[in-house]
Amino acid sequence: MEALENILNRRSIRRYTDQPITDEDLHKILEAAMSGPSCVNARDYSFIVVRDEETLLKMAEANGRPAQPLKKAAAGILVLGDLDRAFKGAPDYWIIDGAIACENLILAANALGIGSVWLGTYPQENRVENLKKLFDLPDNIIPHSIIALGYPDEQPTRKGFYEEDRVHFEKW
Amino acid sequence: MEALENILNRRSIRRYTDQPITDEDLHKILEAAMSGPSCVNARDYSFIVVRDEETLLKMAEANGRPAQPLKKAAAGILVLGDLDRAFKGAPDYWIIDGAIACENLILAANALGIGSVWLGTYPQENRVENLKKLFDLPDNIIPHSIIALGYPDEQPTRKGFYEEDRVHFEKW
Repeated sequence: MEALENILNRRSIRRYTDQPITDEDLHKILEAAMSGPSCVNARDYSFIVVRDEETLLKMAEANGRPAQPLKKAAAGILVLGDLDRAFKGAPDYWIIDGAIACENLILAANALGIGSVWLGTYPQENRVENLKKLFDLPDNIIPHSIIALGYPDEQPTRKGFYEEDRVHFEKW
Repeated sequence: MEALENILNRRSIRRYTDQPITDEDLHKILEAAMSGPSCVNARDYSFIVVRDEETLLKMAEANGRPAQPLKKAAAGILVLGDLDRAFKGAPDYWIIDGAIACENLILAANALGIGSVWLGTYPQENRVENLKKLFDLPDNIIPHSIIALGYPDEQPTRKGFYEEDRVHFEKW
């Protein structure tokens, strides 16, 4: 798909068919996730790719009501920040670096015809703690977001997205 | 450009030719920036588009040493969070929503042949304060990042980006 169109037509997809995602496509999606910029090129993230149904159910329970689409997803990718790799001068850039990885991930999925919904975890502390426990994560590894993935079983229509009132020129 | 290739081949560009960016391309870039997901669809961001040379110099001064490319940029876009629009239950999602807007912005620029470098502002408090003063921003509007834009006058080579040690399957 053409790159601009891919950005403009992506919508959150919460209903999926039973079609699995191939290892090859998962690899492409993860490569895209790791191809964004990061603060001082720290690449302070990691990923847990989950396709096991039982684990997807547990992730859905751990991440609050909006995470229900995980229960029928072909895969869920837990995106994690890695504080040991983060920029020492301002470690909170891990939050931004993780978001870059997530956005690239969902755009790459869309380019491959795979739908996704981004399930926010950080900064909601109960979700962060639930997932830390579920995956028994070390202290330096912080749950950032979960991306649910699957072939679309719904087709949300595109809405106009440019909003004039958000754009200022030269000054506020 | 093909969507996956556009994500994989994007590199930070810090040297620019004198070629200006058209209003039409700027509009496309901003539309892409506003086409990502955001927490509860809050769309809690705004943009200041700067092409005035003197203002670009002041932004470069305000945002620390890595911001020097702004001095020769065709445009600088200051991406801002809007706390009045942020999700009340967890307003810090504004940081993630701003990062999504920035990543879409640089990917759209790349698709149009326009180079960019992402200049981190938040969470570095001195940069945030300098830019708040420079643009006399209201209290609810927080500087997130600056994106410097211009036609590339350098061609960094692509590096491999998939790192096996960042990817886990089913468990940590």
